Amino acid sequence: MLVPEKNVHHKSSQVVLFIDLLNHFEFPEGRELLAQAMPLAARLAKLKRRARQANIPVVYVNDNFGQWRSDARSILEYCVRGEAIGREFVRAIAPDPEDYFVLKPMHSGFYQTPLDALLRYFGATAITLCGIATNSCIVCTAHDGNMRDLKVTVASDCCAAANVRLHRQALAHMKATAGARIVTAASLRFLNTSR
Amino acid sequence: MLVPEKNVHHKSSQVVLFIDLLNHFEFPEGRELLAQAMPLAARLAKLKRRARQANIPVVYVNDNFGQWRSDARSILEYCVRGEAIGREFVRAIAPDPEDYFVLKPMHSGFYQTPLDALLRYFGATAITLCGIATNSCIVCTAHDGNMRDLKVTVASDCCAAANVRLHRQALAHMKATAGARIVTAASLRFLNTSR
Amino acid sequence: MLVPEKNVHHKSSQVVLFIDLLNHFEFPEGRELLAQAMPLAARLAKLKRRARQANIPVVYVNDNFGQWRSDARSILEYCVRGEAIGREFVRAIAPDPEDYFVLKPMHSGFYQTPLDALLRYFGATAITLCGIATNSCIVCTAHDGNMRDLKVTVASDCCAAANVRLHRQALAHMKATAGARIVTAASLRFLNTSR
Amino acid sequence: MLVPEKNVHHKSSQVVLFIDLLNHFEFPEGRELLAQAMPLAARLAKLKRRARQANIPVVYVNDNFGQWRSDARSILEYCVRGEAIGREFVRAIAPDPEDYFVLKPMHSGFYQTPLDALLRYFGATAITLCGIATNSCIVCTAHDGNMRDLKVTVASDCCAAANVRLHRQALAHMKATAGARIVTAASLRFLNTSR
Repeated sequence: MLVPEKNVHHKSSQVVLFIDLLNHFEFPEGRELLAQAMPLAARLAKLKRRARQANIPVVYVNDNFGQWRSDARSILEYCVRGEAIGREFVRAIAPDPEDYFVLKPMHSGFYQTPLDALLRYFGATAITLCGIATNSCIVCTAHDGNMRDLKVTVASDCCAAANVRLHRQALAHMKATAGARIVTAASLRFLNTSR
Repeated sequence: MLVPEKNVHHKSSQVVLFIDLLNHFEFPEGRELLAQAMPLAARLAKLKRRARQANIPVVYVNDNFGQWRSDARSILEYCVRGEAIGREFVRAIAPDPEDYFVLKPMHSGFYQTPLDALLRYFGATAITLCGIATNSCIVCTAHDGNMRDLKVTVASDCCAAANVRLHRQALAHMKATAGARIVTAASLRFLNTSR
Repeated sequence: MLVPEKNVHHKSSQVVLFIDLLNHFEFPEGRELLAQAMPLAARLAKLKRRARQANIPVVYVNDNFGQWRSDARSILEYCVRGEAIGREFVRAIAPDPEDYFVLKPMHSGFYQTPLDALLRYFGATAITLCGIATNSCIVCTAHDGNMRDLKVTVASDCCAAANVRLHRQALAHMKATAGARIVTAASLRFLNTSR
Repeated sequence: MLVPEKNVHHKSSQVVLFIDLLNHFEFPEGRELLAQAMPLAARLAKLKRRARQANIPVVYVNDNFGQWRSDARSILEYCVRGEAIGREFVRAIAPDPEDYFVLKPMHSGFYQTPLDALLRYFGATAITLCGIATNSCIVCTAHDGNMRDLKVTVASDCCAAANVRLHRQALAHMKATAGARIVTAASLRFLNTSR
């Protein structure tokens, strides 16, 4: 049950973003991307457990797939329905009630979304990016985070693109031009900064 | 059921915005505002029927009340629950499945929301504002619409503030400084501009 | 001479905004507004001296008057030329080399301007608004500051509208709906928060 | 002399953006970038002549280099002063009085700038990107243009990065993920769409 004004209980300088993981993979190269994404599921679940233990918020930042109804539940339901090719992947990484959820209309997690305002409420100064695709929505979100003076980290083994070459080039690009730190999930240190 | 990329079927130069109508009225002067808002319900319902007949989209632009879960359904459920003081009002003007829904984190319907992008998809050049409160979220949305070169109309008898004086001053302010046209709902002309 | 990366020397939680003071007054009610603005000149100059002594930055936030050349000097030159009706006023409050300057294309100081980024560099959490017109650009900037969680103060005797009634209504509106504190310049306390 | 409201005489569906060409090259790899940029100068000058003949606006979108004074002239003066390593390059491509000028605080030409509003005034639906560096500010501006539903073209031989490999990877990235068309300047077709 919604308790107005009581739902942002977190204060945290670090925030983890799960980008476009609720996905229908219904686009060109969707099957290739799904194949690359499958190994991420277990790592993402583990990362989320670690974040929760450190009281660090996890924010799902997800395409609205042209739905424009602000209805995260419908998007989840569509992506896990019987005939959805990515249903196993999406079920494995589906949001829990305590996770935050921001719908985005375009590639970047910051463009025409309340992500800026939500990060401000958290008191966040650093974001860790996970999700798909590395060379598209992750790159756009990394640039936009960097322009807002946020410290941007990319969890390299929690991101995927349609193939490994594109994934690696995108990581190198973000390191060189978006001030991004590229690390594996295992080497992320989550400090409990909650207040 | 969500059909990706098929949900924005409208093309329309005119769009009607229903602002903060899903409301819990749990704030100072909430009861005063509710009392002023009650007579709007029938007019808003009628306005929506007329818009639908003219194939003009209605977009609910609503506070997320600090929930940050992109979950329009929870907000509706909270506002119509048994003990909600505004449950009758909210039930009377609740969204239908074909209505659009944009959640906003702050006062203006444009600040950190996808409203700009949605209006671009519609091909909209004119917005008609309805909702509460006239002197707060309606004023902010009117100014932001005007700065985006949208033609702004305010349906004066489909808006309310905590008292009539504040309502009227806000209407005069928007007319003088936000380029807003102030008209009654009955005098709105909805031309079917769908393509 | 420009010294790259050396020009933002200020760190300050408080910032003073001078809004649309470089003005040509060439619009309907321009002469009425100029008449109301003339008494502000001496107070604005004094306020700027006090801000400078406390090491608080003053940012001119000014309409570009459709010029789109990012050329603050041309705008100043136009407003103080021989035949400009506001030349005396503008000369009296013209920017000094140490003042900052942000051009805005529309009413709000925040809309499509770098003001957000500049305030972030200062580390600012509070803005004090001065300028013209109280019921137009000051109102829009107050709302936008409030939505960004900035503490908004309006220096009531350093703002003016085309007449006293509009000025006072706008002050009351900002107090009630934009969380603005309304005070006279003399009662502003500038704490030296520079680091 | 500034003539208010008369300065945007252009109406054009196409606009050419000259990004970060007024540059001091005073950053790591600045000399490498300058060496790659030098051959662009003649092509950029020719492109501008062609755009002008077709009545297509050219907008310089340039870093403010931390200056925050909205003073395009100072930035130009600094970049062409005697000891500036890029003075020859900058002199060759300096703006003419009829060119537009937008200062940007960060990488993207759209972030906290009036570029959106200026393009709206032009009625622009397509942007052609030229400038430096391909893998940084050009990439960010291409993504942001694409998210705004603008048709994005990159003039490949009017852009440069610190080396050819980075330049080519960035072009491939923009083609794959930002919907960008990659063409040489010679193959650009400028249709006179002025109204």
